[in-house]
Amino acid sequence: MTNKLWQRSSMTLEDVFQIIESYQEPSLARLEELVRIPSVSAENKGIECADALMEIFKDEIGFQTQKIQTSGYPMIYAEKNVGAQTTLLFYDHYDVQPVDPLNEWESPPFEPIIHDGKIYGRGVSDNKGNIIARIFAIKAYQAVFGDLPLNIKFIIEGQEEIGSPYLHEFVENYPELTQADFCIWESGHRDADGNQQVWLGVKGILYLNLEITTAKRDIHSSWGGVIENPAWDLVWLLQSLKGSDQEIQIEGFYDAVQEPTVEELENLERIPFNTEAYYKDFGIQGFLKTGLDLKTAYYYAPSLTIDGLTCGYQGPGDKTIIPAQARAKIDFRLVPNQDPDDLLEKFKKHLQKFHFDEKIKITSYHGYPSARAPLSSAYLKIICDSGEEVYGKPLIVHPTTAGSGPMYLFKMDCLSFGCGYAFEQAHAPNENILIEDLILNMKHLATIFYEFTLNQ
Amino acid sequence: MTNKLWQRSSMTLEDVFQIIESYQEPSLARLEELVRIPSVSAENKGIECADALMEIFKDEIGFQTQKIQTSGYPMIYAEKNVGAQTTLLFYDHYDVQPVDPLNEWESPPFEPIIHDGKIYGRGVSDNKGNIIARIFAIKAYQAVFGDLPLNIKFIIEGQEEIGSPYLHEFVENYPELTQADFCIWESGHRDADGNQQVWLGVKGILYLNLEITTAKRDIHSSWGGVIENPAWDLVWLLQSLKGSDQEIQIEGFYDAVQEPTVEELENLERIPFNTEAYYKDFGIQGFLKTGLDLKTAYYYAPSLTIDGLTCGYQGPGDKTIIPAQARAKIDFRLVPNQDPDDLLEKFKKHLQKFHFDEKIKITSYHGYPSARAPLSSAYLKIICDSGEEVYGKPLIVHPTTAGSGPMYLFKMDCLSFGCGYAFEQAHAPNENILIEDLILNMKHLATIFYEFTLNQ
Repeated sequence: MTNKLWQRSSMTLEDVFQIIESYQEPSLARLEELVRIPSVSAENKGIECADALMEIFKDEIGFQTQKIQTSGYPMIYAEKNVGAQTTLLFYDHYDVQPVDPLNEWESPPFEPIIHDGKIYGRGVSDNKGNIIARIFAIKAYQAVFGDLPLNIKFIIEGQEEIGSPYLHEFVENYPELTQADFCIWESGHRDADGNQQVWLGVKGILYLNLEITTAKRDIHSSWGGVIENPAWDLVWLLQSLKGSDQEIQIEGFYDAVQEPTVEELENLERIPFNTEAYYKDFGIQGFLKTGLDLKTAYYYAPSLTIDGLTCGYQGPGDKTIIPAQARAKIDFRLVPNQDPDDLLEKFKKHLQKFHFDEKIKITSYHGYPSARAPLSSAYLKIICDSGEEVYGKPLIVHPTTAGSGPMYLFKMDCLSFGCGYAFEQAHAPNENILIEDLILNMKHLATIFYEFTLNQ
Repeated sequence: MTNKLWQRSSMTLEDVFQIIESYQEPSLARLEELVRIPSVSAENKGIECADALMEIFKDEIGFQTQKIQTSGYPMIYAEKNVGAQTTLLFYDHYDVQPVDPLNEWESPPFEPIIHDGKIYGRGVSDNKGNIIARIFAIKAYQAVFGDLPLNIKFIIEGQEEIGSPYLHEFVENYPELTQADFCIWESGHRDADGNQQVWLGVKGILYLNLEITTAKRDIHSSWGGVIENPAWDLVWLLQSLKGSDQEIQIEGFYDAVQEPTVEELENLERIPFNTEAYYKDFGIQGFLKTGLDLKTAYYYAPSLTIDGLTCGYQGPGDKTIIPAQARAKIDFRLVPNQDPDDLLEKFKKHLQKFHFDEKIKITSYHGYPSARAPLSSAYLKIICDSGEEVYGKPLIVHPTTAGSGPMYLFKMDCLSFGCGYAFEQAHAPNENILIEDLILNMKHLATIFYEFTLNQ
């Protein structure tokens, strides 16, 4: 591949890389500018970050930029249509996680500092660093080649960290703005061994809050044998959903689940899985499965988790009561083809089947399906080939990230990778990235762009 | 019975009753004196109530009185040995429940007031009113007949409301002081229809705090299918203990349980059981059983209750985690012949059988056996016959109270009744008793004493 890329023009990718290196200071300056705006959506702060971003888009790369109002924080839409065959969509967000616990930060979260080859501050990894890398990769490409070899769109929302409540509305109202051939999703990070990684999608979810109320007050537990106890009802319901064999017992739950293909299993084999590192990080004794079974279950099987239980007396010492109410929070992680609406119906039928439907209330729920690009995606191949060029070794391809997200709204291959690393502390105190990774990520992106010169 | 009792001396019970009526003011004055001392053991307050009681015993009835130190609040021991064949022990306590919620009291809890035929204040029912009734019944009896027809002992402890932590120590260290033929236990109350009641005992208990920790921190729930979740372990353990048929599945759990006898079933038939009143009080739709089955289960069957569940995220909204830890509080209510130590061993074997023994920790437990006088108790007959005389209708005999208590320490028939009524608000704001009931209780006690003139 190298020769092909290097010789397509009198200017070469090497020229772009040199420009990218010269952008280290100005790109960090722009990142610092964004980090200084405390755009914590959970605290309704920093909406002005949208305006700062508009300026950067105009000043640095001359993209057509719009601020589009939603029922919440505005969306930033930026685009450059060069009349190419292929359109790339970048999905990002300008909001950040809250900074708690503040006392664990070694420097103020909204006063970025550079130290030991890293830049520290809330959002440097998730997701402002990636926005800046994407903008400066475009800037460098334009500086060398004059124009881009593909059309590029950005959608940058302001409430990703609180669950993207208005992204759905935006995608419905502006279908043309979100039309593209493929999408590079917000972020990603190198693993602990330094391997660059790419994710093909996100898991789906169906989250349920359950509640059973059997009395108007707690009752003396001497009545335990003759009065219904909502805690027992909850235990019996939960046990009926999943027994100790870990199989989910809701009728039809697994109907849509597909076994991984031979190619997918081969890819799983290539994913490093450092169980010892997880044991240490989580403080666990082991996993429920091992080897390829473990990876298959993690990436390709749905799950049912009890996230929380609340009932009766929880303080120190002993209190003898039949609780008046019991509550549970549960989530189903969904794989491709599982539809949360369909599964909610199946869950309700399960309640009926076990005669819990008149007792157990679903007080709230939310859900969305998974999204997953195929392993055969042509865009994945471009990302992996380009990445191997820049990073000097093959990328690790994960079928899905750990989390869920509204990726299903975009009807195209959405691929996640970015400028983070294993110890970036995203969502935690002392969030940081390696400056080296910021530059490498720009080079990776420029190499991807360059691949599309073939299509013009 | 009436003629027999009325004619055994030139002085009659009627004379005692007249004296009792004349004691209304002085007995209320003494009760007010005690109520003014805020002897809330849970708050380490009011230990001086012991000294006030000592004075009352000496001044009013000339009993030999000792203050006996324990590792906690002192015990008051008072006795009058008249050389009679029979010795009666009164068990009482001078501590009271905390007053929270204070703002629901219509008058200050430690400033007793008399209003509308009732006296209000913390402890007027539980248990200071009963102490005063017992002392003034003796005083009246002595005033008429010169001396008692039976030996009487009092043990009055100061920490009943926090679980009698030192009563065990006292009974072991002073076995001779607690020796008697029968015991009248601290208190009791008339039912909502005005029937006077007597209780034959208390339930036993085995209370367990259970804990499972599977990780050092909460883990993202996308790992739900491959990492052990302590909430599921807890659900599966609890379900193995008791399924939806309500049967406790611990091997040998029911071995010692005895079916009620024909006489006991006949007595159960006589106990009013106003299900509608319970529905209203508890806010429940119904009981798990009906009729005689319901009463039999309530009084004669052991039970297993989940008192509390704690696990993972319990706040508003959704959080997707595998919790690091899950906890449960459970209690077994025990019936005669069930031994909490034996049941604890059986519980541990159950943990082993289901392979939970290495996962689930019993972080704390406490237990004691039930205590129950037989329905054929001669002392019960005296109490019932005397009560019918005073109250004009048969007493209701309950095989046990709702609660548990350290009654098992006293190796004799312990029978509970007292001066309370259905709306006495014991343990709640606006605790009160009817002054009429205080006087009737004294008459009931005097009638019981009088019965023992036959034995002299």
